[in-house]
Amino acid sequence: MATTKPWGGRFSEPTHELVERFTQSLDWDRRLYKYDITGSIAHARMLARSEILSVDECDSIVAGLESIDAEIVDGGFPWSSALEDVHMNIEAELTAKIGEPGKKLHTGRSRNDQVATDMRLFLRDAVDEQIHLLLVLQGLLLDVAEREAETPMPGVTHLQVAQPVTFGHHMMAWFQMLDRDRQRLVDARRRINISPLGSAALAGTSFGIDREFTARELGFDAPSENSLDAVSDRDFVIEYCSHAALLAVHLSRMAEELILWASERYRFIEIGDAFCTGSSIMPQKKNPDVAELIRGKSGGVVGNLVSMLVLVKAQPLAYNRDNQEDKSPMFDTVDAVTGSLQIFSAMLPSIEVDREQMRSAVENGFATATDLAEYLVGKGVPFRDAHEIVGKSVRYCIDNDLRLGDLSMHQFRQFSDEIGDDVYSVLTVEGSIRARNHIGGTSPMQVRAAISRARKRLEASK
Amino acid sequence: MATTKPWGGRFSEPTHELVERFTQSLDWDRRLYKYDITGSIAHARMLARSEILSVDECDSIVAGLESIDAEIVDGGFPWSSALEDVHMNIEAELTAKIGEPGKKLHTGRSRNDQVATDMRLFLRDAVDEQIHLLLVLQGLLLDVAEREAETPMPGVTHLQVAQPVTFGHHMMAWFQMLDRDRQRLVDARRRINISPLGSAALAGTSFGIDREFTARELGFDAPSENSLDAVSDRDFVIEYCSHAALLAVHLSRMAEELILWASERYRFIEIGDAFCTGSSIMPQKKNPDVAELIRGKSGGVVGNLVSMLVLVKAQPLAYNRDNQEDKSPMFDTVDAVTGSLQIFSAMLPSIEVDREQMRSAVENGFATATDLAEYLVGKGVPFRDAHEIVGKSVRYCIDNDLRLGDLSMHQFRQFSDEIGDDVYSVLTVEGSIRARNHIGGTSPMQVRAAISRARKRLEASK
Amino acid sequence: MATTKPWGGRFSEPTHELVERFTQSLDWDRRLYKYDITGSIAHARMLARSEILSVDECDSIVAGLESIDAEIVDGGFPWSSALEDVHMNIEAELTAKIGEPGKKLHTGRSRNDQVATDMRLFLRDAVDEQIHLLLVLQGLLLDVAEREAETPMPGVTHLQVAQPVTFGHHMMAWFQMLDRDRQRLVDARRRINISPLGSAALAGTSFGIDREFTARELGFDAPSENSLDAVSDRDFVIEYCSHAALLAVHLSRMAEELILWASERYRFIEIGDAFCTGSSIMPQKKNPDVAELIRGKSGGVVGNLVSMLVLVKAQPLAYNRDNQEDKSPMFDTVDAVTGSLQIFSAMLPSIEVDREQMRSAVENGFATATDLAEYLVGKGVPFRDAHEIVGKSVRYCIDNDLRLGDLSMHQFRQFSDEIGDDVYSVLTVEGSIRARNHIGGTSPMQVRAAISRARKRLEASK
Amino acid sequence: MATTKPWGGRFSEPTHELVERFTQSLDWDRRLYKYDITGSIAHARMLARSEILSVDECDSIVAGLESIDAEIVDGGFPWSSALEDVHMNIEAELTAKIGEPGKKLHTGRSRNDQVATDMRLFLRDAVDEQIHLLLVLQGLLLDVAEREAETPMPGVTHLQVAQPVTFGHHMMAWFQMLDRDRQRLVDARRRINISPLGSAALAGTSFGIDREFTARELGFDAPSENSLDAVSDRDFVIEYCSHAALLAVHLSRMAEELILWASERYRFIEIGDAFCTGSSIMPQKKNPDVAELIRGKSGGVVGNLVSMLVLVKAQPLAYNRDNQEDKSPMFDTVDAVTGSLQIFSAMLPSIEVDREQMRSAVENGFATATDLAEYLVGKGVPFRDAHEIVGKSVRYCIDNDLRLGDLSMHQFRQFSDEIGDDVYSVLTVEGSIRARNHIGGTSPMQVRAAISRARKRLEASK
Repeated sequence: MATTKPWGGRFSEPTHELVERFTQSLDWDRRLYKYDITGSIAHARMLARSEILSVDECDSIVAGLESIDAEIVDGGFPWSSALEDVHMNIEAELTAKIGEPGKKLHTGRSRNDQVATDMRLFLRDAVDEQIHLLLVLQGLLLDVAEREAETPMPGVTHLQVAQPVTFGHHMMAWFQMLDRDRQRLVDARRRINISPLGSAALAGTSFGIDREFTARELGFDAPSENSLDAVSDRDFVIEYCSHAALLAVHLSRMAEELILWASERYRFIEIGDAFCTGSSIMPQKKNPDVAELIRGKSGGVVGNLVSMLVLVKAQPLAYNRDNQEDKSPMFDTVDAVTGSLQIFSAMLPSIEVDREQMRSAVENGFATATDLAEYLVGKGVPFRDAHEIVGKSVRYCIDNDLRLGDLSMHQFRQFSDEIGDDVYSVLTVEGSIRARNHIGGTSPMQVRAAISRARKRLEASK
Repeated sequence: MATTKPWGGRFSEPTHELVERFTQSLDWDRRLYKYDITGSIAHARMLARSEILSVDECDSIVAGLESIDAEIVDGGFPWSSALEDVHMNIEAELTAKIGEPGKKLHTGRSRNDQVATDMRLFLRDAVDEQIHLLLVLQGLLLDVAEREAETPMPGVTHLQVAQPVTFGHHMMAWFQMLDRDRQRLVDARRRINISPLGSAALAGTSFGIDREFTARELGFDAPSENSLDAVSDRDFVIEYCSHAALLAVHLSRMAEELILWASERYRFIEIGDAFCTGSSIMPQKKNPDVAELIRGKSGGVVGNLVSMLVLVKAQPLAYNRDNQEDKSPMFDTVDAVTGSLQIFSAMLPSIEVDREQMRSAVENGFATATDLAEYLVGKGVPFRDAHEIVGKSVRYCIDNDLRLGDLSMHQFRQFSDEIGDDVYSVLTVEGSIRARNHIGGTSPMQVRAAISRARKRLEASK
Repeated sequence: MATTKPWGGRFSEPTHELVERFTQSLDWDRRLYKYDITGSIAHARMLARSEILSVDECDSIVAGLESIDAEIVDGGFPWSSALEDVHMNIEAELTAKIGEPGKKLHTGRSRNDQVATDMRLFLRDAVDEQIHLLLVLQGLLLDVAEREAETPMPGVTHLQVAQPVTFGHHMMAWFQMLDRDRQRLVDARRRINISPLGSAALAGTSFGIDREFTARELGFDAPSENSLDAVSDRDFVIEYCSHAALLAVHLSRMAEELILWASERYRFIEIGDAFCTGSSIMPQKKNPDVAELIRGKSGGVVGNLVSMLVLVKAQPLAYNRDNQEDKSPMFDTVDAVTGSLQIFSAMLPSIEVDREQMRSAVENGFATATDLAEYLVGKGVPFRDAHEIVGKSVRYCIDNDLRLGDLSMHQFRQFSDEIGDDVYSVLTVEGSIRARNHIGGTSPMQVRAAISRARKRLEASK
Repeated sequence: MATTKPWGGRFSEPTHELVERFTQSLDWDRRLYKYDITGSIAHARMLARSEILSVDECDSIVAGLESIDAEIVDGGFPWSSALEDVHMNIEAELTAKIGEPGKKLHTGRSRNDQVATDMRLFLRDAVDEQIHLLLVLQGLLLDVAEREAETPMPGVTHLQVAQPVTFGHHMMAWFQMLDRDRQRLVDARRRINISPLGSAALAGTSFGIDREFTARELGFDAPSENSLDAVSDRDFVIEYCSHAALLAVHLSRMAEELILWASERYRFIEIGDAFCTGSSIMPQKKNPDVAELIRGKSGGVVGNLVSMLVLVKAQPLAYNRDNQEDKSPMFDTVDAVTGSLQIFSAMLPSIEVDREQMRSAVENGFATATDLAEYLVGKGVPFRDAHEIVGKSVRYCIDNDLRLGDLSMHQFRQFSDEIGDDVYSVLTVEGSIRARNHIGGTSPMQVRAAISRARKRLEASK
């Protein structure tokens, strides 16, 4: 038994059967097969180019690997968990297919640099897809923002009505959150896209390999600078998981708002039937399950980041087997984020905005009180005093069940002599919104300008 | 399409295909099938007893569910992810098998209380198994402790040799750590073993159900006290995950020590070949992979706890779909902990202790310096002064490459007049160990007494 | 300089000034002074009883420590961070005050068991206080629950109206959450209340100490069983932090609901002015800051738990200096939880319930649709078919802007022949609530029964 | 009482005294005073430039703020926690000093944009300092790497001897880890250095402010694009905390290695007395406390990241009071990382390398077994067969207590006919190291080339 292992020679006892099960990683890492084959082909070509393999051997290896790829796609590949992992499965099958040359493929590399290479190739693809999905979702947000650039809604702080904003402005806040996420992924990609191949077990190899060649062949920006670091480094996974955690938390914030807005008491939006589900017991229910799951998935993504940090904490160099546990957090995170982005983009166009409900909400919440204070400042009242005057006016309105705009000039004058007839236009929702007319402000003109700058930025990123 | 859902009636549009994939939980929750069937049988019996179902209907349901159980075990069950989850899969198949009565099974319950019931039944079994596995591992530790009750090894703090202890004493420290873990699981079980069944969606039901009956039938200690709480509560998972995290961290500490002790510079132990693996490139390697994986898995377990806490944080009552994401952390944690406990127990007896290396380590590290200080205190020197005297003696030894026991009486007297010939016996490893003769101390007598108390405790727990 | 350290003798170079700053813990651990003094007094008495100190020496130490306690309370104590920590500060001052006997106090113990003792004494007090604060808050919840046992409100799942419940029932859900928290603290206390004193540095001591005596003197249940474990064990902090994290998450869930209910769109409650704050710029704002801070503090508490787990992960035995970093998470957690519990209890009575708004919300959300389905089941319709019928009725109502109770008998009959005139009483909010009349259900009778059981439980816990 | 609040007007009841304590943030945020004053001065100048304030008012404000700055530095500032936070303290004192103009300073801004501005200014400074500290530490690592470029040591994987590397190569692995950390901080700084000032409470302001001016004045790269986002965004703190967590984990890995290498069984290094501490009870101890604390502090830093993510998770826009809890994690993280970097740089030059111990360790661990396998491949043996041959040779050596280089040619031939006399030079440590001569490899030539590239990179970054 022991002798079927790639490392049996030194051992006098076979592996315990529990160990097979406990240490096998095939259930997870078979997902890397495509990248493992790609990496092996590049490695074989380099070995031939460096005259470590003959051209015939290389051709035979490449053909063998390509037929294995096809077999895996077809579902006909004889995966065996006794062979521990995806790397040994493919290599064993290669040798079964092509004989001696198969045994030479592992020359000048080790599983340590091999798995690091596979993971980087996988994650590069995943990040590229997520950058693309972000661009799509951001584009959709711009469309909604444009459509609703003049739609008033209550801007809230502390979940209490604060000042009027537009729904378009709110969508642009989401846009900005995602834009930072995208930038971070772009930054992280630079550190993902480095080739560890050729670092071998930890020290490099005595074969005359050409690491620049394999790096180029696999689309990496450069070979890694230090072999010890290259085989033990999982920073690229952790950095990705960090950015993913923040992105997931953003999506969870956006989901929280959708859930709130779709609740009966808000009714600011209605999410399309196709993106809601019902109840097995309550026939009237239409639940925003998609949004809730997006919110819920952020928990797993944050947990995965913690798993990775705990995993690595205080590990001495170089590779330790602990690192096998890096795959599940990485895959789970990629899946949760990709799935959430896809479905958010699908759901967004199904959302109908109830402008009437939003207007009614903004009109009932003293949302223009700040405008009154700023009006007073314009009349020469220091801000702190103006604040006090308006506070008292609001108190009076609450006690008498009035809105600020309902106050007569006489009533206004009880709070301040500076108030004149021009106050009423200041207290309108539209007046308030229009007045916030500087970069970043909620006035429709500024929102449209922000949309236009954003479109240019997205274009430039494609 | 929409009408195949258990909740189609109110909807005018079918579910989006991405939603099917995004919201299905079958990949995870099918693992609960056994508990789902057990729970449904108890529910059906209660409905019959309460005359909500006829006896015939109940019999037909029970028989149907039992045949489904058998089908699942055989692998012949037609799982369909379009049916969302394990509950709907089983109910749909039941109705397909037995017709009308199948549609009545869901009377007086909801998926909300159903899934909470399934999870509690699952976790109760998992916790019972882990309590058992802890008892096994603790028993094995007692055996090693007994065998090595007199084996000196360097007791370290700050990874520096501090004082001599025995290897048996060290094993008993591990025993204590695990004993607290076991107590915590026993405590948690009391809060797991409560029946939510009959809480229905969130408010209870208008049918005349008998919640005490189902609780009893399923071996729960009592029905839950509040329906809103019962369907939203995931405390039992979080509490379990907390205890599991601490347990995993304990196993990781123990694994860290095994890895260290098995390294070439320590050689305190050798782990059996059956529990080590080799390298694909370095033929001489014998790696403590099992211990490393145990250490590594603690990362995932801590991450799962965080996932659960983030998931629940600030959720309003009652059930929200976010909670679907509770299954993966729970299952992963159970698997990681169960697997780690099993393999630790299998590996422990394979470990050979190198008593010679441990003795040599304890003799080279000034481990009995404290004994010298305590000797001086016995002669009337205040502890702080004694400490200073010994510190200077050690400094002298280091500078002259000596051990404390190598100093002549003349040399000793340069540091303190209080030192006499009886000092040499105090400086032996055996003398030092024997002297720590109080409860909790490292003297073999105390270690054996601790083992004997521990055996009684374990016996009482079985 | 180096010689002023308690450990200078062996060193030939003074400590680097950065090290003083980096390693000092006085800023944090001085908070333990009271427990340090209590522990030292018990230790001194034991030393005298065991004839290691004379009675005079012991008396002198006790008097010295008591006067130091008074000095610290008065603010006159000369804290010095050059003396590293609270223990050395107190011991140095003691020796300055009473001379030689002060230097003998440290006989038979080490800072390792000393700090572990101090922390356990501190945490035992903190846990006792939090158990008390939980009892207080639970009592207040029972009062509100009793007052509002018949107040209908919309029970929600997925933040969508599900079924009518009573506000009292909702309060009792909170009660149950906190009750589990309290149980967990009680369980944890048993594992906190163990005496490590006498474990010395890691191996015990050669002095003839009496660990049972100090354990008893300090109110501990027993001395710890293993000296290596006792000085390295921080489980008691981690277990506490776990329970605190869950408790904080509960408070955060309750706070989330208060914030939601107090928002303009809900208006289910109004929080007293004394527990809200305003805005520096928006004069109308009345923000539920207290609830928001309670919610926010849960983040820190979860983070502290993670800090502790990361800290301990994979540490070899016995004490490592890493453990110094345990104090800040422990203190922060205690403060956040104690503060949150106190203020929640202060705020709760200030909350006014708006019964009208809650009734209007429950009447507008098809909350009794399930009752209609259950009514149909009572008429012999299988549950799944009844669900479908009601789903279609609701769809019809939404499309025609009606409530279920607005449908005419003719309209009802279009969906099912089984519906009769008795349906209208089933569709009332009161009827729905009253019908959920089994243990854990929302009917006022059941809520009152639950309150009565709860009162008994609280009484028994006092 | 209530009227002394900046928001009293609307309230009819004073704040509860517990609330004062619970909601005050002064204990933490006073640390921001310098940035608060700088931000206010820029804001005042902008208001004057935009003719919202007169030049005299602006001058008076600036002078007032500067004198407050001086007061705070001198310790004479009358901090009052009744004034809630650093912002209100400074503003109240300003108004006390200069009268009316003080009340006008808050025109066109809110505490929401003000605190976001302060935090960004603070964090920009902290990040700049940490980038500098990284450059310093990296420079020191290059010096050690250069000095030890030819010093053999055992390269380990799984903490088992794998292949020879040089100590210089190992130091360069550390260098690479820190280099990525530095890059990440540089990337994060771009997202920190954006001006939220002028976003006001959430929607912008109706005053004709000039946000580009204040952005420029404060050294920001640009004003933020969206006011809602700007006041609620804490991404910059979270991103920083993520990078800090990874950096802290790196330092913890480096610390772990120092602790290991300094242990009696390794003795690869000795850390200077000035960076170690002793024991209060064991006079011989010299503990690597600084390294242990660096390792321990990583726990807190990871916990802080989690705190921040939990804090923000699912918060609706815009500002919520939860965010007050962002300061403690940010400050703690900055302090832990800055402190750890400073002391690591101070400690590194105190470390003495024991070349003899490292050589002896590398010679006793079959470290050149891979070289033998690669030698066989050079003779035409497929890699997998070569691996098997060497595995058996090692097994033979272990069983007979030999090193590989001790085997006679006769013994070698029993394992493979391909082995010739030239094998002995392949088995030397120096031969092995020299052979790994490609980019990233451990040969001294490659290490020196890597150092030289690294020096250029550092130079370019200064």
